[in-house]
Amino acid sequence: MARVLTGIQSSGRPHLGNILGAIVPAIKLIDQNQEEAFIFIADLHSLTSGKGGELRKQNTLAVAAAWLAFGLDIQKTTFYRQSHIPEVTELTWYLNCFTPFPMLANAHSFKDKAARLSDVNAGLFTYPVLMASDILLYSADLVPVGKDQLQHLEMTRDIASTFNRIVEEDILTVPEARISEEVMIIPGTDGQKMSKSYNNYIDIFLPEKELKKNVNSIVTDSTALEDPKDPDTCHVFKLYSLLASPEQTVKMRANYLGGNYGYGHAKKEFMELILAKYSKERETFNFFMNNPEEIEKRLAEGEKKAKVVAMDVLNRVRTKLGFR
Amino acid sequence: MARVLTGIQSSGRPHLGNILGAIVPAIKLIDQNQEEAFIFIADLHSLTSGKGGELRKQNTLAVAAAWLAFGLDIQKTTFYRQSHIPEVTELTWYLNCFTPFPMLANAHSFKDKAARLSDVNAGLFTYPVLMASDILLYSADLVPVGKDQLQHLEMTRDIASTFNRIVEEDILTVPEARISEEVMIIPGTDGQKMSKSYNNYIDIFLPEKELKKNVNSIVTDSTALEDPKDPDTCHVFKLYSLLASPEQTVKMRANYLGGNYGYGHAKKEFMELILAKYSKERETFNFFMNNPEEIEKRLAEGEKKAKVVAMDVLNRVRTKLGFR
Repeated sequence: MARVLTGIQSSGRPHLGNILGAIVPAIKLIDQNQEEAFIFIADLHSLTSGKGGELRKQNTLAVAAAWLAFGLDIQKTTFYRQSHIPEVTELTWYLNCFTPFPMLANAHSFKDKAARLSDVNAGLFTYPVLMASDILLYSADLVPVGKDQLQHLEMTRDIASTFNRIVEEDILTVPEARISEEVMIIPGTDGQKMSKSYNNYIDIFLPEKELKKNVNSIVTDSTALEDPKDPDTCHVFKLYSLLASPEQTVKMRANYLGGNYGYGHAKKEFMELILAKYSKERETFNFFMNNPEEIEKRLAEGEKKAKVVAMDVLNRVRTKLGFR
Repeated sequence: MARVLTGIQSSGRPHLGNILGAIVPAIKLIDQNQEEAFIFIADLHSLTSGKGGELRKQNTLAVAAAWLAFGLDIQKTTFYRQSHIPEVTELTWYLNCFTPFPMLANAHSFKDKAARLSDVNAGLFTYPVLMASDILLYSADLVPVGKDQLQHLEMTRDIASTFNRIVEEDILTVPEARISEEVMIIPGTDGQKMSKSYNNYIDIFLPEKELKKNVNSIVTDSTALEDPKDPDTCHVFKLYSLLASPEQTVKMRANYLGGNYGYGHAKKEFMELILAKYSKERETFNFFMNNPEEIEKRLAEGEKKAKVVAMDVLNRVRTKLGFR
């Protein structure tokens, strides 16, 4: 059974773009597939940027709560925090010694920052090796990647092959990329791609009052209430149609074209749709955030399973390199 | 009680230069001092160059056997293998994220190799951070360094201070350097500094027959047997006088100046002196090499002690950074 491994950013409460673009499709795939799924929260990576401990802890919990709220089945999936299998950093040291400096100097993630070298820390520079270690420690066969992540997977493959060649034994599994088909681009409140860094996201887990403000922040034009409106250029309509049933979408489109239907109405309907469609997920999310020990319990289960796989690979590496 | 930490290279059976220049003085200092000593075999560092597992294992055992043979007291000293407290690599990841790229790019150890970048691996580039982690994981107060190692200790101090400043708590102990007074330079068989890389070393642990060959390889001039000889330019005399008592040295000096005393005679006396002076150490070394489980037992004891100290520091770092 092929093992598919996915790392998820621990950058905080997932927004609607993360949910529709990553969480829902991944969980659907796991439910359908006969593959063994490993999903981990990449909290060690987050240290290359933010340093605050309390925020990292909250962010990690929120990410876990969201995946659990959307129905991630921890029986089918090995779900764990990267930092709770710290053996990944040990493998990283070994792999560092098999990774040529120029390979890292040529990584996009480094070159993009090379103009401001003083802002680059050694973690950021070597993070493709940690990423390789994330994959190789669990003998993953398949790694779903967007096109922008392909270089990192190529580096992982290079490092694994180099390692196997030098130690003359195929200890590390050379993973294959599963290039994600067209990823759904979810528009943000300003029509650009929804992203935390653009601060244009819809946070479906907000309490109702704040969610209302959030939805009201969607940018619209100044067409008068009574005039017909173009649904195809409206961000509210686009977002609504991503969640709505075909019938609901057809109905709103007719409202737009008919006139006497304001953006305020559309926003209200969008807000109600979120509350209706995600009532269970919102409730579960809040339950977990109020009972972090319940998240902890579920992650600990995944970490126990992950550790067994990790130690098997790591011990073979240690022995081969003469450390045991 | 101040804690003094020393890392020793795991590059194989220590030669006479290592013994007289490092092992003997260190053990003497430990026996005299009221300080708490941590001594570790830096086997993880050795992976930045050699990749062979069997050789590394043998080298590590030989280093441990030599220190034990020369009387390292494992009650007074915490003696361990770096790789057996793999938590050091976890701290290394954290510290990587607090280490500016330019600091590593300016390290001598990297600049010396920068002309042949393709030969530099990421382990070599980041190894000052592993070195910092070696020191900081054990809250060492003092680190004995030669002048050529001073930059690495400065980097460790920088990294520790930066870390403490950013997390707003003095979690890491900023270590002080103890700059070694004039280190004894031991001449090799060719008169240059004795060194593995010059292949000019005396290996006192060799079986007698091979030791004889080794001693006979000391380079001498072609002064005839019957002629007087200059002890002060002779490598044999220099090496002999490092091991001999004052009386023995005075006697050999007279022999040199008197004539009818050949280099062969001097080499024979040097060889006999090694066998006499180090008979116990040679025997103990061989015992350990033939009974590696006895080495293992002693190292395991040190590793148990080291682990307790390491976990205390590491857990404080983990918690502060939000990983626990």
